[in-house]
Amino acid sequence: MIYARPVQELIDELGRLPGIGPRSAQRIAFYLLKAPPEDALRLARAISVVKEQVSWCRRCFNIADSGSGRAEDGTVECEICRDPRRDMSVICVVEEPGTIVTVERTREFRGRYHVLQGAINHLEGIGPNQLRIRELLARLETEDIAELILCMSPNIEGDATALYLAGLLQQLAVKVTRLASGLPVGGDLEYADEVTVARALEGRREVGR
Amino acid sequence: MIYARPVQELIDELGRLPGIGPRSAQRIAFYLLKAPPEDALRLARAISVVKEQVSWCRRCFNIADSGSGRAEDGTVECEICRDPRRDMSVICVVEEPGTIVTVERTREFRGRYHVLQGAINHLEGIGPNQLRIRELLARLETEDIAELILCMSPNIEGDATALYLAGLLQQLAVKVTRLASGLPVGGDLEYADEVTVARALEGRREVGR
Repeated sequence: MIYARPVQELIDELGRLPGIGPRSAQRIAFYLLKAPPEDALRLARAISVVKEQVSWCRRCFNIADSGSGRAEDGTVECEICRDPRRDMSVICVVEEPGTIVTVERTREFRGRYHVLQGAINHLEGIGPNQLRIRELLARLETEDIAELILCMSPNIEGDATALYLAGLLQQLAVKVTRLASGLPVGGDLEYADEVTVARALEGRREVGR
Repeated sequence: MIYARPVQELIDELGRLPGIGPRSAQRIAFYLLKAPPEDALRLARAISVVKEQVSWCRRCFNIADSGSGRAEDGTVECEICRDPRRDMSVICVVEEPGTIVTVERTREFRGRYHVLQGAINHLEGIGPNQLRIRELLARLETEDIAELILCMSPNIEGDATALYLAGLLQQLAVKVTRLASGLPVGGDLEYADEVTVARALEGRREVGR
């Protein structure tokens, strides 16, 4: 005996999600089996609604709710790209839409974004061609951009992506900067790892500047 | 800015699944956003199909595909309970339907099952009333059962559940047994933990028996 076919199919589909192994997939499937129908169907509906209503901003590849800003040709533009008060000359390049939320919370950035939708990760077969780099270069040609801020995570994949982009953009007449690496505010120097301290030393700034 | 409403709703729904924290929920939501629509919708459909077609066996609370064995009153019976070649006098009591698959693979058990749909776990608020124990007692009254095999996991929750059931069933004229605890076959004695070795000692059997 194996599971009834619908159950096995649900386990298989759940097992395809990132970070969900066969055991978690089975656990989640049994949870959904036990859950009240309305709870389980709410999840099914949330997936369908997202695929129906949400797509990528045609300019920056952020999440764009197609309910609001649909253009004449059927493509959509995200809230930030549509906002005329934004500084059009600065682009903050991020890996995932989630980072936009993090940067927006700081209230320090008034430019626009470009979402690469991933980072270079040779182990997982993600190279520059799998990212929205071509689309970034197209924006640099058509928009009047003065500065690109590389806002990658300070890890192997983020560093590889930032390095690749910095090389690619070298010949272009655009200023390319990267977020400072260093000690997190509120952190304790004694417990900081040596790579972070090394980066903080490397990026030290004159006091009183 | 937060995420577009459909995206936030998907993240919230995913975050309700067992073992999925807020970060995994966000990661899975972005994965589904990026996935081809047919892949994401296959998952949504698998959930709906399971809630439509699969329910619990009215006898043993195993998974029952309602496509096959629907009774006159609309309830369903699972494949195993419907099988007339099964030994009707022995019930193997398990925590989850998944355990049935494990026991069936041994080809050593020809009786039927009873799925408790959980184990006693006071930390998570799961007591005897949340399990299908009432339904097990009802079966003992109406069916002619000679032996109950308690097939709980050898961990804290499984032990608590087995202990509770053993106490509850003491007065009834039914033989109650529990799976042997001991060294796993193919394991190395040197690397076995002391609790397992203690249980193996406790359950030692005369050679040649």
